[in-house]
Amino acid sequence: MKILIQIALTGFITLILAGVNPAQAETYNLMPQPAKLEPGAGRLVIDGSFRVALEGYQEPRLEAAAARLIRRLSLETGIPFRDGLENDTGKATLVLHCDHAGEAVQSVREDESYQLDVSSDRARLTAPTPVGVLRGMETFLQLVELDTQGFSAPAVRITDRPRFPWRGLMIDVCRHWMPEEVVKRNIDAMAAVKLNVLHLHLTDDQGFRIESKEHPRLQEFGSDGHYYTQAQITGLIAYARERGIRVVPEFDMPGHTTSWCVGYPEIASGPGPYQIERHWGIFDPTLDPTRAETYNFLDTLIGEMAALFPDEYFHVGGDEVNGKQWNTNPAIVAFKQAHGMKDNADLQLYFNRQLLPLVQKHGKKMIGWDEIFHPDLPHDIVVHSWRGTESLAQTARLGFMSILSSGYYLGTVLPAANFYQLDPLAGPAASLTPEQASHILGGEACMWSEYVSPENVDSRIWPSTAAMAERFWSPQDVKDVDSMYRRLAVVSRELDWVGVTHHSSYPLMLARLAGRGSPVTLETLADVVEPAKHINRRKVREYTSFTPLNRLVDTARPESEKARIFSGWVDHLSANKDAVRKQLIIWRESRAELIPLMQQSALLQEDIPLAEDLSAVARAGLEALDYLDTGRPAPQAWVQEQFVLLDLAAKPRPEELLMIVEPVRKLVEAAQRGSQQ
Amino acid sequence: MKILIQIALTGFITLILAGVNPAQAETYNLMPQPAKLEPGAGRLVIDGSFRVALEGYQEPRLEAAAARLIRRLSLETGIPFRDGLENDTGKATLVLHCDHAGEAVQSVREDESYQLDVSSDRARLTAPTPVGVLRGMETFLQLVELDTQGFSAPAVRITDRPRFPWRGLMIDVCRHWMPEEVVKRNIDAMAAVKLNVLHLHLTDDQGFRIESKEHPRLQEFGSDGHYYTQAQITGLIAYARERGIRVVPEFDMPGHTTSWCVGYPEIASGPGPYQIERHWGIFDPTLDPTRAETYNFLDTLIGEMAALFPDEYFHVGGDEVNGKQWNTNPAIVAFKQAHGMKDNADLQLYFNRQLLPLVQKHGKKMIGWDEIFHPDLPHDIVVHSWRGTESLAQTARLGFMSILSSGYYLGTVLPAANFYQLDPLAGPAASLTPEQASHILGGEACMWSEYVSPENVDSRIWPSTAAMAERFWSPQDVKDVDSMYRRLAVVSRELDWVGVTHHSSYPLMLARLAGRGSPVTLETLADVVEPAKHINRRKVREYTSFTPLNRLVDTARPESEKARIFSGWVDHLSANKDAVRKQLIIWRESRAELIPLMQQSALLQEDIPLAEDLSAVARAGLEALDYLDTGRPAPQAWVQEQFVLLDLAAKPRPEELLMIVEPVRKLVEAAQRGSQQ
Repeated sequence: MKILIQIALTGFITLILAGVNPAQAETYNLMPQPAKLEPGAGRLVIDGSFRVALEGYQEPRLEAAAARLIRRLSLETGIPFRDGLENDTGKATLVLHCDHAGEAVQSVREDESYQLDVSSDRARLTAPTPVGVLRGMETFLQLVELDTQGFSAPAVRITDRPRFPWRGLMIDVCRHWMPEEVVKRNIDAMAAVKLNVLHLHLTDDQGFRIESKEHPRLQEFGSDGHYYTQAQITGLIAYARERGIRVVPEFDMPGHTTSWCVGYPEIASGPGPYQIERHWGIFDPTLDPTRAETYNFLDTLIGEMAALFPDEYFHVGGDEVNGKQWNTNPAIVAFKQAHGMKDNADLQLYFNRQLLPLVQKHGKKMIGWDEIFHPDLPHDIVVHSWRGTESLAQTARLGFMSILSSGYYLGTVLPAANFYQLDPLAGPAASLTPEQASHILGGEACMWSEYVSPENVDSRIWPSTAAMAERFWSPQDVKDVDSMYRRLAVVSRELDWVGVTHHSSYPLMLARLAGRGSPVTLETLADVVEPAKHINRRKVREYTSFTPLNRLVDTARPESEKARIFSGWVDHLSANKDAVRKQLIIWRESRAELIPLMQQSALLQEDIPLAEDLSAVARAGLEALDYLDTGRPAPQAWVQEQFVLLDLAAKPRPEELLMIVEPVRKLVEAAQRGSQQ
Repeated sequence: MKILIQIALTGFITLILAGVNPAQAETYNLMPQPAKLEPGAGRLVIDGSFRVALEGYQEPRLEAAAARLIRRLSLETGIPFRDGLENDTGKATLVLHCDHAGEAVQSVREDESYQLDVSSDRARLTAPTPVGVLRGMETFLQLVELDTQGFSAPAVRITDRPRFPWRGLMIDVCRHWMPEEVVKRNIDAMAAVKLNVLHLHLTDDQGFRIESKEHPRLQEFGSDGHYYTQAQITGLIAYARERGIRVVPEFDMPGHTTSWCVGYPEIASGPGPYQIERHWGIFDPTLDPTRAETYNFLDTLIGEMAALFPDEYFHVGGDEVNGKQWNTNPAIVAFKQAHGMKDNADLQLYFNRQLLPLVQKHGKKMIGWDEIFHPDLPHDIVVHSWRGTESLAQTARLGFMSILSSGYYLGTVLPAANFYQLDPLAGPAASLTPEQASHILGGEACMWSEYVSPENVDSRIWPSTAAMAERFWSPQDVKDVDSMYRRLAVVSRELDWVGVTHHSSYPLMLARLAGRGSPVTLETLADVVEPAKHINRRKVREYTSFTPLNRLVDTARPESEKARIFSGWVDHLSANKDAVRKQLIIWRESRAELIPLMQQSALLQEDIPLAEDLSAVARAGLEALDYLDTGRPAPQAWVQEQFVLLDLAAKPRPEELLMIVEPVRKLVEAAQRGSQQ
């Protein structure tokens, strides 16, 4: 197939281009790292005279992009550019040259390559397509920084193209409704790190979040009034296209459809009536795959939505059908028997086989979660893997296209390094032939929204998603974690100017928690706390769509930068002993101000044990330092006592982790040995 | 005159109502303080079941207001309210009762009074007019806070109305263009503190910022494309009216009109051609007051703008005519002679006399700066005093209405206390009779925009303007500065939720300044720095509309909270000696990280002396503490050395002040005496 050959070729070229010297790249704050970077001599000064000119093929998208570039550069530098856009390329600081138009509807085949040449007197960005120009623009913006002379970009030649053609972010707008502005600012941030697919999870048990004119009771009864109008969706798609991003809609079926059944119980497998689901999990309501009425309904719905979303792919979900309604509806049981189906998997396969021609009839290719896969399906479907890399590799082996999301779930609140180190072509996929591997189109970060609201969703998506964006874009051998974290810190700050609220929401949420107290006091604790990983929050308290997400667990960042830096100090203790001691003293003493503050806040009382632990663990660390200073092993009784303390402090309380426990454990272990080594 | 009688009556009633016990009020975080507050028993719980119902007179503005209240409360508490608006008043947590419609066009005569009753099971807000409801809503929102039990409002009865009917904020959108969203978010913040007049300074030498369809070259040649379309203005006026705020437009003339003359040199007093002015000051271009063509032009312009702005007042500026063009144009010189005018003041009076009937013809009353005043003018004009309280009192004595802006200039970057302590009816106005005093309608905070951009303008307006809002609204005897600062800190945080960027822009600007360094390090210095007062920034560097406002002086807040708190500790040293010492050690040691960071940033190099001073001054403070510990006076040589150091450190460098100098001077003086007393 043509597309596969092209992708295989792209992969091959990428390997050739990947000759970037990591040591050189280290001095540039680029994320994702480009395929190839050759340093030049000198720097291009950015001052009030900065101007951009367009050259070659022109279209409104390029003009808008140039205007955005000027605005971003103005925001980031604080310089008002008197004349931003310039007609005369000879007078421009930056020339954007585009060869020809891109695809009318951007696809996985879109050419995203570009070349960026910065010299000490001008910069030139050339790309075959507008999307390539968009990608290169973001690279140019990342190059600009302040040094001793002012703002400038280093002279450099960058030749760049993506490793994978499908680099996505999925946002679940169902469990918690995400208004238009949340999606828009995240599109801007996606563009900043060269992602190219926004996957909108538009329907689920908790909400049907898009206007259907054909079946208006879907949103009228299934959304609490929180849905995108078709005009808004058209606006979002245009907004995304302007930034080189595809929008893939998901209509999850036949399970996860409670919200559909509220207005249309006749397409459900059980009798109803139905109400919008407020909890999380796998629920019974499921479309009835045995009746023509269901397919008539879907035909109209898919037709309507296929016309609204120009993307060639249509995501039909397909995950987590519990089968209860299918097992208890006598008509469905009889249908299965009549058709010789041995289980509900057979019935779901039957459903998918009816669904596929509907999707195709309306001009789309089907994508769905792992469960939709069956070897009989046509080879232009894409399997979206949430179950693991084994199923991903297996799908590719059978000649099917797939994308990986297993391991890229942002809701796990894991460190960026975890996401970064997961390569779609590593693990089980490493044994694939190059031809098989070319079926793996890329991956998607997934933001399921059980535990995020518009207020804190950005803080779960960013900056980790930038690390995944590098994994999907950059050559496979770009994988140094320290370098990633160093650059991630820079790109994370740049994302502030792009408009996401991952930083700005934090002080507001802290101030709310602190009530009459000082948010600065609370920050001492909150900065070293993370939401617990691998716990079921529903076991701590009942969570529904209406539960306020205004507690410390919702405020704390997925990854504590402060704790990570402290941990690095401990790992190189001899060079950082003073800093470690100073920091431990602050934490040990924080108790005096923290506890009274937390006692007077109804939202913080449950977290007081964390504050107690912070102080106690810091005290243990300080004592360990004192023992180390003696040069002799610490008494065993003391050591055992500290381990008991640390083991307790390592537990989630109630839904958060104190991130200084493990580095302090290292200090205690060193004291036990009587040596830093 | 009816209006004056009503205002006088209002003033009288306010005095009666002002029986609030300051000690009681102290436990409420209200700003402005209400006229009367009676504490009740218990608290009204705010949880997910919170609902609002409207009662009595209804209009869309009230429904929109209730929806905004629910949204704000949801933002501030983090609680998603399942059913916000409720039809059944019996089920509502908060009932909003409005008696009747307000004025079709809000004026100084609008009734803004309200009564708010909060008990432990419900709240009821009653007001004669929708504007009264809007005022009371903000009071309700300010009452809600987090305590040991959750979010709640204290039981209370508040009976409230404003002291002055004109409580304004002027924003200059000419020297630096302020896009629509800047104005909108500031309207929201104004409403939060019960201000009721937005005065838009729409034209000046540096820009004509509004679309004229009659004279389109005004904005086409005079704005660099930065102006409000008429549709945007209509939108802004509607937005303001929804929040109980009048919009008074200013067309400053006959001086400050360079931007007019670019497109229409024929109405200027000099030959032209003209270019948009890029500097600040008083410039020559002035309308020609001797020719009929000028008045024909103004007739059309005022007619067009009078139809666009519904407010009864039309601000004609009138300030700072330097008269150079009038003195050098032979025709104008001849005109003056022919009409027996002895000076340019006579000519400006002539201009105003021609202008007034044009303003009146289009249904408006005239307001202008001090210079327009003449005893012959009709008594419905308003004199806008920028020259001082003496002219204000004099105007009132002569039976003319006036508002005060002298002393309320935000560009002075003075502490909030300075603005707060200036009462329009104190000083020269204190000797006015009650009837005369009633002519003083109120005041306006003025944000001239020479040294502010959309990025930092909010940080100059807020929170100080909240203190002025209290001055204009609350009874005259509400004037305790400590109480003001305590409440200001709370309202300042609440304004974050309203959407102004006075807090959120700070870390972004710090990060930009820090370049590759850590903004947290820079914060140690920036937190105790203020822009210098009473200096002419143009003497430090050339400033124009295109000069980047991205330096430390533009980033530092007008008032350092940290320095103010530190100063308070020093004033009560015996209770705060540990805190003072700890803080001084941090500052003394900050040098090691600050200087390298500042050396590598082109924008910070000029500020390195400040960082040196921070460290040296802190060292002096620590040494003073050590001497105090000895109980004996410090050696005179040491004392003199410190005074030399402090005198130097007290100077602006280059445009900023180090705010810890004065409190440390007190420590040195105490060491000199050998005693804290």
